[in-house]
Amino acid sequence: MPRPPPSTWNNVTVASVNPPRGMRDFLPADKARRERVLAVIRERYRAHGFDEIETPVVEEYSRLHAGIGGDNEKLAYNVLKRGLDADAIRAAADDPAGLADLGLRYDLTVPLARFYATHRAELPPVFRAIQIAPVWRAERPQKGRYRQFVQCDIDIIGDASARAEAELIVATLDTLDALGLEGASVRINDRRVLEWMLDAFGFTEAERPGVLITIDKLDKLGPQGVVAALRNAQGPGSRAATPAAVDAFEAFLIRPMTLEYHPYGERQIRKLLPPDAPDDIVAHLVGIGEAVAAARAAAGHEPAPESVAGGDGIPLVFDPFLVRGMGYYTGTIFELAHPSVDYSLGGGGRYDGMIGRFLGQDVPAVGFSIGFERIVDLVATDDVAAPRAVVLVHDRDVAVGELLALKAALVAEGSRVRLEQRTKNLKALLERSAADGYTSFATVGAGAARETLEIKPLA
Amino acid sequence: MPRPPPSTWNNVTVASVNPPRGMRDFLPADKARRERVLAVIRERYRAHGFDEIETPVVEEYSRLHAGIGGDNEKLAYNVLKRGLDADAIRAAADDPAGLADLGLRYDLTVPLARFYATHRAELPPVFRAIQIAPVWRAERPQKGRYRQFVQCDIDIIGDASARAEAELIVATLDTLDALGLEGASVRINDRRVLEWMLDAFGFTEAERPGVLITIDKLDKLGPQGVVAALRNAQGPGSRAATPAAVDAFEAFLIRPMTLEYHPYGERQIRKLLPPDAPDDIVAHLVGIGEAVAAARAAAGHEPAPESVAGGDGIPLVFDPFLVRGMGYYTGTIFELAHPSVDYSLGGGGRYDGMIGRFLGQDVPAVGFSIGFERIVDLVATDDVAAPRAVVLVHDRDVAVGELLALKAALVAEGSRVRLEQRTKNLKALLERSAADGYTSFATVGAGAARETLEIKPLA
Repeated sequence: MPRPPPSTWNNVTVASVNPPRGMRDFLPADKARRERVLAVIRERYRAHGFDEIETPVVEEYSRLHAGIGGDNEKLAYNVLKRGLDADAIRAAADDPAGLADLGLRYDLTVPLARFYATHRAELPPVFRAIQIAPVWRAERPQKGRYRQFVQCDIDIIGDASARAEAELIVATLDTLDALGLEGASVRINDRRVLEWMLDAFGFTEAERPGVLITIDKLDKLGPQGVVAALRNAQGPGSRAATPAAVDAFEAFLIRPMTLEYHPYGERQIRKLLPPDAPDDIVAHLVGIGEAVAAARAAAGHEPAPESVAGGDGIPLVFDPFLVRGMGYYTGTIFELAHPSVDYSLGGGGRYDGMIGRFLGQDVPAVGFSIGFERIVDLVATDDVAAPRAVVLVHDRDVAVGELLALKAALVAEGSRVRLEQRTKNLKALLERSAADGYTSFATVGAGAARETLEIKPLA
Repeated sequence: MPRPPPSTWNNVTVASVNPPRGMRDFLPADKARRERVLAVIRERYRAHGFDEIETPVVEEYSRLHAGIGGDNEKLAYNVLKRGLDADAIRAAADDPAGLADLGLRYDLTVPLARFYATHRAELPPVFRAIQIAPVWRAERPQKGRYRQFVQCDIDIIGDASARAEAELIVATLDTLDALGLEGASVRINDRRVLEWMLDAFGFTEAERPGVLITIDKLDKLGPQGVVAALRNAQGPGSRAATPAAVDAFEAFLIRPMTLEYHPYGERQIRKLLPPDAPDDIVAHLVGIGEAVAAARAAAGHEPAPESVAGGDGIPLVFDPFLVRGMGYYTGTIFELAHPSVDYSLGGGGRYDGMIGRFLGQDVPAVGFSIGFERIVDLVATDDVAAPRAVVLVHDRDVAVGELLALKAALVAEGSRVRLEQRTKNLKALLERSAADGYTSFATVGAGAARETLEIKPLA
């Protein structure tokens, strides 16, 4: 490619030496602060048995534009093919996809799904991943929104049970505690609840995606505003939804509610949903709450203040109208809240269908992402020492709450802890754990308690 | 852009889920190992008073293709402009630069120069930067060469003296020691020596770049091979150099040498050069050696083995035929060697002209880059504790060797140390140091010694 003559860059003005639009340089104090916060996050996540991985910053163009990334696909930075000649460029004029073979990742979830498909044989059956890395989106620059920003994701692949959500939530809350952001809570819902609810009201399948987008604006529009928007859909291509369904939805949304308090659990969840909500989904939501409550109590946490989380020690709030944007969520969805700010500090959810798209075989997956750019300015940090690493090998029938309570007690003592369900070949399991850096293990049967747990050295 | 129909990505084969060609995923064990090594490097560099910064992974296309990056410019991954329509693409067919507005950085030096020009007002007069970050080059993939790889650079901007080179070399050797790679040494030369030498032999200015490329192959071709190549230049566009100059070069290169040993210093340097080498360049090279020797001795290092570094405790080897590829070097150049491997583990040099191209005002600069991908597999590491941070405020007339000896003694005790030349406004200097995270300081006059140094708390 032709070089500009030296004179054009020999006389640049100071205005032209800024970093690219919407992106930032970090000076030493900022950089040091960011690295300290990241070190705490990494250390806490590792304490909870997650393992860090890394993928290249670029992925194949076709993978980034396969319809999985939702609106983010349109915001991708695409990388020009090398060695294109004039003919090839002209030929691609009507199909820009012909110009690009790679793109900068716009999230860490699509690369993780690709990574898992690539390396599944080398990973444990339940794989707990940490990814701490930048992503890129060509959004209109605005205050607090950048075109390169760091995401901190933890994901559990291979566990369809409520334990996975609970592990993610406990690890995330503990990390926020370690960052001095105590008092955080998690709003939780399930995409299947939303689908079931809209179906119960009588919205057609075709209407539901648009209705969800409108419900997602409940915070901004209020209940009356949402109902009005559903009745009089505006904008290109919009249509008002089935009137009878809107009526049913309105009657549910704007109804007299008793002020009687229920802590997070089945009574509260059922009270906030239309009658006859599916038992399996409610049970999954209840199971998450029980496990989180047990883990938090075992780690010696004070009950959360009533204003934040219901005053019962469970920092969870069921919100039947939580939607979250990404189309790939298939079950639980959650958002991280903190009393010091009125915006979300992170979120995540279950995306059981995505890995199958790369692997050709469905594998359950759930992830929780901390909005690093949002919390880095809220915290002050200290260094933390390297912990003991323990594998808890448990029988299949140990209750999730018991298991997470045990884990949390050990984590609170300063250990790094991984849960492993016992397999026939215990020796192979322990060898793999040792190879992963674990130094001790304990076997856990039903009724096990911290006091009676026998922790033995590995190898 | 049109999405491929789901069927094309729903049935991908395992072969198609690899990371992009020439790039790597890192599984947990690899990732943990890399992060541990990076933590040691970061900690050691910080101990030596360098500060980490970060720039976006992309820079403006025009900046990456301004002729500074040498051959690497051709290897850049360029980022497609967003929102191009068919007409714009056709219009750019004969000028691919019209398709791209950004590119992935191919090194950390061009972004550092841009960063310094952007933020000069916020940086100390002598700015010691750490950059630990990936770079991208679309090279033909081959064993041990990757298209995304991590570089660890330290640079000193704003110091034209030999102290800058010495600080870089001492910090780099200490880092290798901390990684368990004791016994490393640095081959050193000066681009001005090469230019002077070629001029002295009678090569024309036009011939010199080609002659340097040939001399750079001395390791591969041997002295006779280099002379033959200069006489019979082959390849497209090549011409044989001035015969009389080649004769003079041959007489110098293939001459009887006494085996009498001189340690690194003026006698050795003059012995290895043609007569009457410029005094200022020789003095600069000698000054680096004196400062490095003083620092290493003060830190309690055993003399380096004779086979590596001359047996006199100075891990430096003068090599008048060291060339290094980058066109932007203007003075000292160096390469890092270790007895365990026959390839270079890093290198660097002085590039006093580059920052002026961004800033419009010349600022001296010198950098040393560790080849992270080459050393990460050679080392085993342990964690290191966080050190005390001391600013040494010194008078202008303190000898460089004394100063670096003091600094090295403190670093060896576990402190992080920054050198600051005393300014009229001492209070402002100390306040800035405190803001940068330094906790104590000492003033240093001529003849100062560790024993008599009075370290006081900052603020």
